[in-house]
Amino acid sequence: MAGSEEIRLRFPDGSVRTFPRGVTGLDVAKNISPRLAKEALGIVVDDEIWDLTRPIEKDAAVRIVTWNDPEGKYVFWHSSAHLMAEALQSLYPDVKFAIGPPIEQGFYYDVDLEDGKITEEDLPRIEARMTELARRKAPYQRQTVSRDEALRYYRDRGNPYKVEIIEELPPEAEITFYTQGDFTDLCRGPHLPHTGYIKAPKLLNVAGAYWRGDEKNKQLTRIYGITFPRRKMLDEYLQWREEVKKRDHRVLGKRLKIFTFSQEVGAGLPLWLPNGVALRNALTEMLQKEQRLRGYRPVVTPHIARTELYKISGHYDKYKESSFQPIKTPHEKEEYLLKPMNCPHHCIIYKEEPRSYRDLPLRLAEFGTVYRYEQSGELHGLTRVRSFTQDDAHIFCRPDQVKSEIKGVLEMTLNALRRLGLNDFYVQVSLRDPANPEKYIGAPERWEQAEQALREVVKEVGLEAREEEGEAAFYGPKLDFMVRDALGRAWQLGTVQLDYNLPERFDLVYTDEQSQPQRPVMIHRAPMGSLERIVAILLEHTGGNFPLWLAPVQVIVLPVSDKHLEYARQVGRRLFTEGFRAEVDERSETIGKKIRDAEHRKIPYMLIVGGKEAAEGTVSIRRHQHGDQGVIALEAFIPILHDQIHNETA
Amino acid sequence: MAGSEEIRLRFPDGSVRTFPRGVTGLDVAKNISPRLAKEALGIVVDDEIWDLTRPIEKDAAVRIVTWNDPEGKYVFWHSSAHLMAEALQSLYPDVKFAIGPPIEQGFYYDVDLEDGKITEEDLPRIEARMTELARRKAPYQRQTVSRDEALRYYRDRGNPYKVEIIEELPPEAEITFYTQGDFTDLCRGPHLPHTGYIKAPKLLNVAGAYWRGDEKNKQLTRIYGITFPRRKMLDEYLQWREEVKKRDHRVLGKRLKIFTFSQEVGAGLPLWLPNGVALRNALTEMLQKEQRLRGYRPVVTPHIARTELYKISGHYDKYKESSFQPIKTPHEKEEYLLKPMNCPHHCIIYKEEPRSYRDLPLRLAEFGTVYRYEQSGELHGLTRVRSFTQDDAHIFCRPDQVKSEIKGVLEMTLNALRRLGLNDFYVQVSLRDPANPEKYIGAPERWEQAEQALREVVKEVGLEAREEEGEAAFYGPKLDFMVRDALGRAWQLGTVQLDYNLPERFDLVYTDEQSQPQRPVMIHRAPMGSLERIVAILLEHTGGNFPLWLAPVQVIVLPVSDKHLEYARQVGRRLFTEGFRAEVDERSETIGKKIRDAEHRKIPYMLIVGGKEAAEGTVSIRRHQHGDQGVIALEAFIPILHDQIHNETA
Repeated sequence: MAGSEEIRLRFPDGSVRTFPRGVTGLDVAKNISPRLAKEALGIVVDDEIWDLTRPIEKDAAVRIVTWNDPEGKYVFWHSSAHLMAEALQSLYPDVKFAIGPPIEQGFYYDVDLEDGKITEEDLPRIEARMTELARRKAPYQRQTVSRDEALRYYRDRGNPYKVEIIEELPPEAEITFYTQGDFTDLCRGPHLPHTGYIKAPKLLNVAGAYWRGDEKNKQLTRIYGITFPRRKMLDEYLQWREEVKKRDHRVLGKRLKIFTFSQEVGAGLPLWLPNGVALRNALTEMLQKEQRLRGYRPVVTPHIARTELYKISGHYDKYKESSFQPIKTPHEKEEYLLKPMNCPHHCIIYKEEPRSYRDLPLRLAEFGTVYRYEQSGELHGLTRVRSFTQDDAHIFCRPDQVKSEIKGVLEMTLNALRRLGLNDFYVQVSLRDPANPEKYIGAPERWEQAEQALREVVKEVGLEAREEEGEAAFYGPKLDFMVRDALGRAWQLGTVQLDYNLPERFDLVYTDEQSQPQRPVMIHRAPMGSLERIVAILLEHTGGNFPLWLAPVQVIVLPVSDKHLEYARQVGRRLFTEGFRAEVDERSETIGKKIRDAEHRKIPYMLIVGGKEAAEGTVSIRRHQHGDQGVIALEAFIPILHDQIHNETA
Repeated sequence: MAGSEEIRLRFPDGSVRTFPRGVTGLDVAKNISPRLAKEALGIVVDDEIWDLTRPIEKDAAVRIVTWNDPEGKYVFWHSSAHLMAEALQSLYPDVKFAIGPPIEQGFYYDVDLEDGKITEEDLPRIEARMTELARRKAPYQRQTVSRDEALRYYRDRGNPYKVEIIEELPPEAEITFYTQGDFTDLCRGPHLPHTGYIKAPKLLNVAGAYWRGDEKNKQLTRIYGITFPRRKMLDEYLQWREEVKKRDHRVLGKRLKIFTFSQEVGAGLPLWLPNGVALRNALTEMLQKEQRLRGYRPVVTPHIARTELYKISGHYDKYKESSFQPIKTPHEKEEYLLKPMNCPHHCIIYKEEPRSYRDLPLRLAEFGTVYRYEQSGELHGLTRVRSFTQDDAHIFCRPDQVKSEIKGVLEMTLNALRRLGLNDFYVQVSLRDPANPEKYIGAPERWEQAEQALREVVKEVGLEAREEEGEAAFYGPKLDFMVRDALGRAWQLGTVQLDYNLPERFDLVYTDEQSQPQRPVMIHRAPMGSLERIVAILLEHTGGNFPLWLAPVQVIVLPVSDKHLEYARQVGRRLFTEGFRAEVDERSETIGKKIRDAEHRKIPYMLIVGGKEAAEGTVSIRRHQHGDQGVIALEAFIPILHDQIHNETA
């Protein structure tokens, strides 16, 4: 078919169609439907994303992408970064551009303003210019240039950043410029057909950023923005963003007195306040109960160990540069490390006594705290910390037990997620790269068996799964739980990881039925990941409106006035004795103020008590976010609370 | 009265008697009663312990001491060290003596044998020689010598140790030698009248010891021994010692799989095995329940903090030399310390929000793990470790709340001790040194108030108390709980410590009724001291025969044969569901072997099930150390267990 005037394009549904050579993505989309042509933002050609306007010269597998595809947003926001750059250039003629990529939510551009400065107050003006430029529907034009041309272009304009980027490109690289209106940028593309696609730009904030992320370099100005193909989508986005802000676990954590950080204690080291400990305890008790029923055995191990332990495990080589440095001792020249993982300690406990095939599986569980050094700029509330407590366990089992053990772990995780009200999740199954079997430790037949077990179990439990070849660790395949919260954001939660490596390194054995030594398989598992992580997610997912069983304060008694304080205390004591987390608001405030404060604290139940209630032994119930629920005898209310908690946790 | 031939001696009962000048302690004792003369071992003359044979030349307060006084044992064992030295000298003529003091239980002597060696096999021969020498009733003769004489004596004998000791004595020191039989020793005394007092010597063991405890010096041989005035007392002692050995918590901890240590993890860092975690959990739950009822609020704080925190608290200066060294970070030049104490973290939490007089007392509780570097030679099982978890809390209160808070702490501690079966205890009340008021921080009237409060509370609660002036810390008075175990040994348990220092250092304030800032008082309290300590004590106190509520495994089901395994499992599941820590012995062993193993594991209840039991839904009960208790319906047994636990913990 070489030299033919026609090419054959294969579509995702398997169909193949013939087009004239040099057809563009836009033409292809039009050919399929006018609607698709309107929605199209780019075209994937043989796994590479292309401009819709770029001619396709040979047979290929193609896929039109729209806003609903990650690649569609990528193109849209990439072009939007160029549009912002064009607006900046027209408003700040001396601006020099460094890099301007699309990101998960929008895009940014790092710019050098020499002596100038851009603050958030300038953003509306830039935004307005973007809108104006977009209306011109200027096409994004692709042009291949030689290295010399490219270098000359930027040297003439005194832009050291682009020069540096070009100089570092491999000699064989094709260099392309994209131009829209008056603005030209060094860029691989692809881009939208023209700026008119960008209907609703919004610049979000300004930050400092070092060139190439290196604090030894010049600090540039980073401008973040986002754009949408429709104004309504921007409005929805801004509303969502407000909601995200309101649910920021750092803000809620402070307001609800869950946790705090202290400059003196150190960044990234959470201090859990009483309300936070109530949450932690409710979570750990729930998990411990599950673990007890599933035959886990709790252990408690030190937070430090000699570096020797981590040399055996291999963690020392992996973490030594980037982690908290070794702890030396005043005498005896010992060296200890804060533990980066609990598994080596559990391997030591496995070795504490001889194990036979009858003793397996051995499931050692520990809410174990581990330490990872993160640079302070990377810390974020409870989701990126320097110490965190994993809901950790290690299962040592025979190869023939792998499947049932993993199934048990998944069932347990699903139970826990359901109780937490996290019902939208899937698992990523990380498998070997079949092209590079030599990268992996452990007998291939064991991998085969384990991967097969993972696949089957995920199916049996009825989980939505995404398989990723080549994503397994060198020491074993794994499952990662991904949870979507109430705002649709995906969070990585826990993990189930097979390990053929540590049993080797620690020389773990069990004797089989023939009294022969055999190597056990090790399964690392932490359904929630860490208490810090799950509390952060729950705060953002619920906005602090926890289910009753988790609420740090479950009931607050609000006396109408000081005259009713004695009865209020009596009610409080009764609830407390029943095991509820109950408080009495003893302040001499108005009942209105007391209710507002309790609502602000998101306490599920407010019991308002005045003269009538005191006389009749009743309470007037108000539920957070639901208002008044009527008057009921205290003794009738108690079983209601018990039932609700029982139903939430059963 | 100077120059008179008579002196006046005052006795402990206040009576004063006249004796001829130069009277000896032995004469005085004879004068009182022949029985006392027989029992007397020394005499305290104006607070100094003297030989019974030393003439008393002037008026004095005196007290005859016997075996029942610590000073009596001191004299007895000091003389016994000399007797052992005499025996050694006769058997090893080249031996050089270093130091040989009495200790809490017996005495030792550090000796240099040059090329020779003494092992435990040699001890009977030395013991026999001691008995032989003792029978000679050689008097211990005191002699004052000049420094030159003393130095010459030891230089002639080539003994560098005694020479060093003499050279270091202050110039004005009176130097005395004591001689019995062929043996002379540099010694302050005092000693027994003659060696015949020593009826029953026993040499216990041999160890290495560096001269002056410094590993750069020569290693000497340390021989430990003990002696008694009667053979029967030695027999009782040896029996007691056997019992102590059997109850050694290190041995029991291993046998009962409570905890372990690992060379790889590091000395002094306990790893808690599942049985140990069951114990820890039972203990913490009991304490948490008490704390909850008393309004404590739990917090959880990191195990590390920046050195800055400990500079504020003062711990950095106190611990820096002797503790685990600071942890450096790969970037940002930060420094962290493993926490030596929980209190600074709790002060930070106190400061987290403004506190008013109405918010106090604030009681922050944490089972917080702290780290102390101890030299490996000083480590001992769970009683001397490098990391331990305190049952810690800090109460921040107003000065007028100190008394009621301390009372609450004492009541809580007494409840806890009672539940643990530790019924023999007293408190030491450590007060200011009234002679040095300038040594103490905090207003004198607050000290006065606090000490008075401590005294009153101890009385109100009905505790046996011993006041010790000058034993208070510079920052506040304290109470220490001393517990005597089943073998009569005293253990220091928890502490209640007032603190006027940290509130100053952290600038803690609350606003009083007039909205004026005031300094709170801080009370440190840890009723058990640490989980490690209390578990060690309980192991030694109970010999591993824990009360049911604490037993790591409460019930074990023993099927008579494999045929009854299914019913055994059914019984096990039923007990497990009821919340008991229950196991099933699934091994194909004889029932006799299963019972022996369960007895060995000290499991309180063994349920033996065979065909009859399976058919009738019953269990045959055997109690550890109590034997068979008869057959009972399983469903009737369950409430018995619940009741027993309820009664033990109520």
